[in-house]
Amino acid sequence: MTAGLETPAAGARPDPRRCANAIRALAMDAVEKAKSGHPGMPMGMADVATVLFQRFVKFDASRPDWPDRDRFVLSAGHGSMLLYALLYLLGYPGMGRKELENFRQFGSPTAGHPEYGHAAGIETTTGPLGQGLATAVGMAIAERLAAARFGDDLVDHFTYVVAGDGCLMEGVSHEAIDLAGHLKLSKLVVLWDDNAISIDGPTSLATSTDQIARFAAAGWHVAHIDGHDPDAVARALAIAQADPRPSLIGCRTLIGFGSPGKQGKESCHGAPLGEAEIALAREALGWSYPPFELPDDVLDAWRAAGRRGAPAREAWESRRAASPKGAAFEAFLKGDVAAEVAAPLAAFRATLAAEKPKLATRKSSEMALGVINAATQATIGGSADLTHSNFTLTKGMGEVAPEEFSGRYIHYGVREFGMAAAMNGIALHGGFVPYGGTFLVFSDYARGAIRLSALMGLGVVYVLTHDSIGLGEDGPTHQPVEHLAALRAMPNLNVFRPADAIETAECWELALASRKTPSILSLSRQNLPTLDRPIGENLSAKGAYVLREPAGARDATLLATGSEVEIALAAADILLAEGIKTAVVSMPSWELFEAQPEAYREEVLGAAPRVAVEAAVRLGWDRWIGERGAFIGMSGFGASAPAAELYNHFGITAKAVAETARALVKA
Amino acid sequence: MTAGLETPAAGARPDPRRCANAIRALAMDAVEKAKSGHPGMPMGMADVATVLFQRFVKFDASRPDWPDRDRFVLSAGHGSMLLYALLYLLGYPGMGRKELENFRQFGSPTAGHPEYGHAAGIETTTGPLGQGLATAVGMAIAERLAAARFGDDLVDHFTYVVAGDGCLMEGVSHEAIDLAGHLKLSKLVVLWDDNAISIDGPTSLATSTDQIARFAAAGWHVAHIDGHDPDAVARALAIAQADPRPSLIGCRTLIGFGSPGKQGKESCHGAPLGEAEIALAREALGWSYPPFELPDDVLDAWRAAGRRGAPAREAWESRRAASPKGAAFEAFLKGDVAAEVAAPLAAFRATLAAEKPKLATRKSSEMALGVINAATQATIGGSADLTHSNFTLTKGMGEVAPEEFSGRYIHYGVREFGMAAAMNGIALHGGFVPYGGTFLVFSDYARGAIRLSALMGLGVVYVLTHDSIGLGEDGPTHQPVEHLAALRAMPNLNVFRPADAIETAECWELALASRKTPSILSLSRQNLPTLDRPIGENLSAKGAYVLREPAGARDATLLATGSEVEIALAAADILLAEGIKTAVVSMPSWELFEAQPEAYREEVLGAAPRVAVEAAVRLGWDRWIGERGAFIGMSGFGASAPAAELYNHFGITAKAVAETARALVKA
Repeated sequence: MTAGLETPAAGARPDPRRCANAIRALAMDAVEKAKSGHPGMPMGMADVATVLFQRFVKFDASRPDWPDRDRFVLSAGHGSMLLYALLYLLGYPGMGRKELENFRQFGSPTAGHPEYGHAAGIETTTGPLGQGLATAVGMAIAERLAAARFGDDLVDHFTYVVAGDGCLMEGVSHEAIDLAGHLKLSKLVVLWDDNAISIDGPTSLATSTDQIARFAAAGWHVAHIDGHDPDAVARALAIAQADPRPSLIGCRTLIGFGSPGKQGKESCHGAPLGEAEIALAREALGWSYPPFELPDDVLDAWRAAGRRGAPAREAWESRRAASPKGAAFEAFLKGDVAAEVAAPLAAFRATLAAEKPKLATRKSSEMALGVINAATQATIGGSADLTHSNFTLTKGMGEVAPEEFSGRYIHYGVREFGMAAAMNGIALHGGFVPYGGTFLVFSDYARGAIRLSALMGLGVVYVLTHDSIGLGEDGPTHQPVEHLAALRAMPNLNVFRPADAIETAECWELALASRKTPSILSLSRQNLPTLDRPIGENLSAKGAYVLREPAGARDATLLATGSEVEIALAAADILLAEGIKTAVVSMPSWELFEAQPEAYREEVLGAAPRVAVEAAVRLGWDRWIGERGAFIGMSGFGASAPAAELYNHFGITAKAVAETARALVKA
Repeated sequence: MTAGLETPAAGARPDPRRCANAIRALAMDAVEKAKSGHPGMPMGMADVATVLFQRFVKFDASRPDWPDRDRFVLSAGHGSMLLYALLYLLGYPGMGRKELENFRQFGSPTAGHPEYGHAAGIETTTGPLGQGLATAVGMAIAERLAAARFGDDLVDHFTYVVAGDGCLMEGVSHEAIDLAGHLKLSKLVVLWDDNAISIDGPTSLATSTDQIARFAAAGWHVAHIDGHDPDAVARALAIAQADPRPSLIGCRTLIGFGSPGKQGKESCHGAPLGEAEIALAREALGWSYPPFELPDDVLDAWRAAGRRGAPAREAWESRRAASPKGAAFEAFLKGDVAAEVAAPLAAFRATLAAEKPKLATRKSSEMALGVINAATQATIGGSADLTHSNFTLTKGMGEVAPEEFSGRYIHYGVREFGMAAAMNGIALHGGFVPYGGTFLVFSDYARGAIRLSALMGLGVVYVLTHDSIGLGEDGPTHQPVEHLAALRAMPNLNVFRPADAIETAECWELALASRKTPSILSLSRQNLPTLDRPIGENLSAKGAYVLREPAGARDATLLATGSEVEIALAAADILLAEGIKTAVVSMPSWELFEAQPEAYREEVLGAAPRVAVEAAVRLGWDRWIGERGAFIGMSGFGASAPAAELYNHFGITAKAVAETARALVKA
């Protein structure tokens, strides 16, 4: 634990209310100019934010990429003007008055909700409620993991979160606070904007939970204060910093503080205050400056606060230079995991090609992970309580536990959404490459966070096993049929469905090489044979490839993914025996195939009639089979029975594929 | 509140442990025979279930459809053998020894997880953890809503839930318990199987939450007892029944109770015990009967318990016959909401055709709902804290509040998943037709429950507004681009995207007529003109139709949905001016169009080149545009800016559509 930074004596500090009013004015003015946005939250939390940033957060505005900076997450992302105003006031690069004036306009970094990568100081994308908090839990975990490796002299920072009533109503908040309390993430501090207002009106319309008691039940240190009393905020933060548990500080605030007609009401939550009301608010706040203009004393005070952490940052850089672990830490942050795993994975693929094991791809994935986790220290594994079904834990990883962060494997609990959000936080924190497992069907539970992985461009890897009716007896609640399509629909997400052990290793290699696009690995529960193919090149890298080409011009082409490639090959055998020259194409990744040159795609798909087979719904397949093509798969939900019976019942068989192809060829 | 049913004097009761052992034996044997399943939970909770069903649950096994029966939800659905064993022991129709012997086999009602509709006594589908609890909250709400209308003499029953550690780790459990505590659902009783084991091992691997304190913080009555002490269970249930709050009874149990080698360990959670261990367990339990065989005294005791509620059911039937509200209650349960709204909606459509308003479809939806909610009392509206954005509240509905259930509108709070699951519970309870609103993008949060609506075949209506980049400034976190595809991928779900006020009314009509398939209404934030078309018939009923047919043979066909139909029409104007004879097809529902005869589909789609336009991803559109076709839409995430700028930036304009069509026609 570190104490707060040295702060100037109270007498030297500018009036905090006046500093806070600068936030309020900027928020009112920017929302008004955009004719769109949320002024209430920034105005309500301005006092808290002022104390937090002027006295507690460790940062240097001139170096927003300082690795040991405290992280700040605005989980209530609709209050984005709070963050933009802070970044401007503190002097972050790239956040000037122009950017505030262009709030919510095309191409401006001041988007409606904070977007990661759009401006320095935006640590994560927020807006979908609850996820900022859950992502912050991942950041706080990453901080402890890195500290365990590189020492507290290099890694020792807090993660601060501003969360709203909506964040705390969302289910993912439960998953996040339960995990954080369990792991005793003492350097996570959540400031709850307890304004008792949500969009529909007072929160008493929909909730009666005692949030303070709720967080205490999850093992948190808790406090409840007046969010407009700077001294109370400072005292609470100092206590929170020192407590060995994660901290919740409930800050009672007035939404829209300063707006005489609208403060305390839902009407100031998500709409401009209007010119007349803004004039009244300026008067009430004693703020006589024109829109976007700031008095020198206030701006000076803020800019000084923005420089406040520079000595600490410089001291840290000296420590890093002197530390025996400094170089390793640098290398960790710049890590090239793809390079680390390339040779071992290639060797592993050669072994597989020689040994031809018959394995479930989830099991092949475990073997690939064994190779990967031995070759790199960057990976942080985990599962949402399906470790021995997802096969995500490999030998010697070490398991993360409360106050024990030297391991690399996290038991995320039955918390798919919280796991995915935490993985985003771990990835954002830098250096680590998180992967986590659940059943493919429960990607539904995590979908909100998978979307943020994709939107932020984070190379998180989702290990999603039991990927079809092939899981058998657990039945339709556990059998994904629409999930491949639903995931393929998401932009900037690579969905991999490998057909055997070799493709599984290839897809892992591609996922680890993909640092700006998250990956889905869709893996079977049932065993699959290792298929014959040329050895050496990563064939999955082109997304689809011809696994078997008949002699002479094709009569038919069979397209398949994952566990159905075996079926396509068996169908091709039937057809070839009849003299129908049939090619088989394996398509482990539609996205990578779509990215190939058209000539390659045409060569692979061929001009002959095509039949696709996948134990999932048809949606999307028409892109590949064309108007003359056919599809063999699922048209509804699955059923509970042994897997082989289900494949027969639903007609996903070599015989059915052969019949369909034969009919097309002869048509 | 009602007290528990009259129970026989303690002396007359069969030994509860011996009765519970019947459950244990059946669970061990069925899982062993299936070579698959979860014996641990039924064995651990057998004592609790015995007390619950023999002494507290109000039901009559011979009449599982008795409307005033208590509801029982096995939220920990993997423990399905607990439920199947109970239904068999109690004498429910259709659940014989054969069904237990065919556990997890194709076509048997004893699926891996309980599937609604597969057997009498299965009140909801469970397995996806946490959702049973959240669905039960909906059932308990429905009970109060119905009681408020028809009186406690006709509607007065409890909802009992068995939830596991996993259910309570899932985020949706928070949404559910917060809502239940807020609404003071005093007749909801949750029995938590506190066995401290989950799949990965002891729950201490991943959670430290004090669940008792957590539920207390949410306003629940709480108790913590020894789940193997029948008297303690009975005492706790009696107190829970009398408490004015919802109740959590933490039942400390030993998973796999009775298995000497595996009890208390995760190894008995999800796999057969094995023959040798079962033999040891039989010995330990003093249970000497062959697999699936029961001694007469135990079966007699259980069957007597199954008949225990018959007098209460008969008394209830007499009350219903005598009640002035009896006939209305019957009519309510048999309700034909489609018939009730047909004429008023037809008249409303005629008015719209005459007045041609320019409205956002979310606003048109509000107008349609005004008509609907006046024409039927069956609808129960709500929103996940976006009431005045979704426009889901209409005049005179009355708002549901703690201890006030005469209204018809529920403020679900910022809880999309919990809302969706609660709507499933309301629909399952009978009579009511729930609809609820959020933004389309946040369907991701609710997707797990939307899937259960579809799997169970419940006619729930999801009102999903702000359905594209047309929402503008809120930016990519709030702009759905992949959600239409992701929802269209789901079996048994109708996705409606109406183009104007008239289609909106039509789609509402179709959604309300669809009692076995849930509906998505995808609605715009931005205003859309009322389009010219023939008046009278519900044109959306066929899923797609020709909105504008050019004179002479078509040169091109434009396909569009929702807000992009206006763009397609403008593109057609451009093309027609150039002499390119262009048809425009509106496709409010792919699913309904797919269900039409091929001849109709071909007539609508036409033989000319097709261009589709939808402000969403392409996935799935190839089915309709064919190999020669083109698609205008989104290829990635949106951005934060005013809507008109975004449409221009992303090239979703009449000009772009016309250019693309022109190029195809001239190719």
